[in-house]
Amino acid sequence: MSTLQNDLILRTLRGEPTERTPVWMMRQAGRYLPDYVKLRNQYSFFERVQTPELATAITLQPVDQVGVDAAILFSDILVIPQAMGMEVQLVESQGPLLPQPIRSEKDLDRLHVPDADGELGYVLDAIRMIKGELNGRVPLIGFAGAPWTLLCYMVQGKGSKTFDEAKIFCYTQPALAHRLLQMITDATIGYLRAQALSGADLVQIFDSWGGLLGPDDFHTWSLPYIRQIVAAVKDICPVIVFAKGAWHSLDAMAATGAHGLGIDWCISPAMARGLAGDKVVLQGNYDPAHLLNPIPVIQKEVRAMLAAFGGRAHIANLGHGILPNVPVDHAKAFVETVQSWKA
Amino acid sequence: MSTLQNDLILRTLRGEPTERTPVWMMRQAGRYLPDYVKLRNQYSFFERVQTPELATAITLQPVDQVGVDAAILFSDILVIPQAMGMEVQLVESQGPLLPQPIRSEKDLDRLHVPDADGELGYVLDAIRMIKGELNGRVPLIGFAGAPWTLLCYMVQGKGSKTFDEAKIFCYTQPALAHRLLQMITDATIGYLRAQALSGADLVQIFDSWGGLLGPDDFHTWSLPYIRQIVAAVKDICPVIVFAKGAWHSLDAMAATGAHGLGIDWCISPAMARGLAGDKVVLQGNYDPAHLLNPIPVIQKEVRAMLAAFGGRAHIANLGHGILPNVPVDHAKAFVETVQSWKA
Repeated sequence: MSTLQNDLILRTLRGEPTERTPVWMMRQAGRYLPDYVKLRNQYSFFERVQTPELATAITLQPVDQVGVDAAILFSDILVIPQAMGMEVQLVESQGPLLPQPIRSEKDLDRLHVPDADGELGYVLDAIRMIKGELNGRVPLIGFAGAPWTLLCYMVQGKGSKTFDEAKIFCYTQPALAHRLLQMITDATIGYLRAQALSGADLVQIFDSWGGLLGPDDFHTWSLPYIRQIVAAVKDICPVIVFAKGAWHSLDAMAATGAHGLGIDWCISPAMARGLAGDKVVLQGNYDPAHLLNPIPVIQKEVRAMLAAFGGRAHIANLGHGILPNVPVDHAKAFVETVQSWKA
Repeated sequence: MSTLQNDLILRTLRGEPTERTPVWMMRQAGRYLPDYVKLRNQYSFFERVQTPELATAITLQPVDQVGVDAAILFSDILVIPQAMGMEVQLVESQGPLLPQPIRSEKDLDRLHVPDADGELGYVLDAIRMIKGELNGRVPLIGFAGAPWTLLCYMVQGKGSKTFDEAKIFCYTQPALAHRLLQMITDATIGYLRAQALSGADLVQIFDSWGGLLGPDDFHTWSLPYIRQIVAAVKDICPVIVFAKGAWHSLDAMAATGAHGLGIDWCISPAMARGLAGDKVVLQGNYDPAHLLNPIPVIQKEVRAMLAAFGGRAHIANLGHGILPNVPVDHAKAFVETVQSWKA
């Protein structure tokens, strides 16, 4: 493993002072990049995810073309339900479909906790290949979905604005729901540890639907499982937790021992810092839709955001994934504005 | 106009002490009620909305069958874009479709500010008929969408998780966006004043998509127009503002002079009160999905919610619309638990 030439994000997460704020973008390896679209038109989603050469090429595109300070593994959070035994279909621009959702104990009995080196070995192969290609230029971020978010898809069977079926499953069959969450947690711990041991320099846990839960429900159905994962992984690599919309529990998420917390654009940096406390790194929080602004407006707004975070304990990012219709030079303007800013 | 026999919600909104907390439910006249489903299967959405006899029958169902402390007019926020000149299709379980969305100045030139007594006269007819049928049993709530939320539909042309097209319209054509928002505002002021003069005892402004905006954007694209509407209406009837998810601006919304603010379930009553200050009534905030819990759990949770609000300056409600699959006796349990609770 070669020494990292750019370890800004790792030093930031360890609480060390850095010469500037590091920057990457959620979904940075995605549809706004013409070279990604070419591969998307040639290969199905799971071909891209499961073929290490393709995952490697896609992961490196934003490093080469946009100049971000970290690569993030090209994959999907639904590889875990798939490895646990569920059929997962990802049809382009239609969202995920799990045709046999979990609704009963019998459904749950069909699942198993996968062996990371077995069913998910293709991810580890991709990580090793990416690390070779990166050759130490920037760190590699691994990731997984939070158990609550994966339960949402596994029970609802598809995307939803409210994931009512998933909530109803939890409220009416709580013991079964906790059993499922624990299975996902065990699978995720093995998976993230294997990612780190294969070369991921840090990992992020995405709780994309954490914000659908009220504070009490978040503390019941999501946080305890995130806490287990952080505890099991944080000693081998830094961990960022991003529970979109769950601003009300930033203090509790900081108390898990996670190194960083993601925040979306619907909270000011000052309020997020007030809630999360002084000990944790904050990551975010530019509204992805704002990347459609003219470049001078982006530059002005990004500098205002950086100033609001104060130039310390901050990783610049979007508050959610980059949109497919963002021009590449707007994404570059975002990255370069961060990289040229001085606190 | 007969004297109201139950004016709990009005006295609460005027800041007067009441013998108990009033309760109603967003979408209380809706698909969880078998008698509503019968009418839905017989008549199209706009037949139900535009026929005063049908709107009256539907509006009264939850008063008669669930015992809520207020009726809310059966209608839709999209009657305003429709009256402004847009085609609006509401296909059951598919969400709204506006086949010719607003994207340019030319599109905007097709719109006009409607005369409430003209294009929207059917709403006022319905209000007068409902008031007659209610015969003073409970107050009638009128409503409209907030200008930002209506812009979302008018520009996007359909429902969306993120309303990117609407945001892009605002960011790239800000003068046009503000012109559209002002037209919607003018239309809404005339509409809500006419509702009040026709018999609505209070009105609610629904900013269903306010929570998609960051704090700065909310202050640019939503709040100034809500402020104008509140200022123009609050002297003829009490106003409740419900900007779902925009908890970060509760203080600014209270400063509009609105009598009440709706909150969703993703904020604790204590935190909402801390942000909104002591002078405004709070309305909410039971998670609608929790109505799928067993009745004893609902009763326990509702009592905990009421205690958290402290039994003053509070209107009990859900944090969003009631779900179609809620059993009627669960909805009744929600209402009756509030009505039998003592602070």
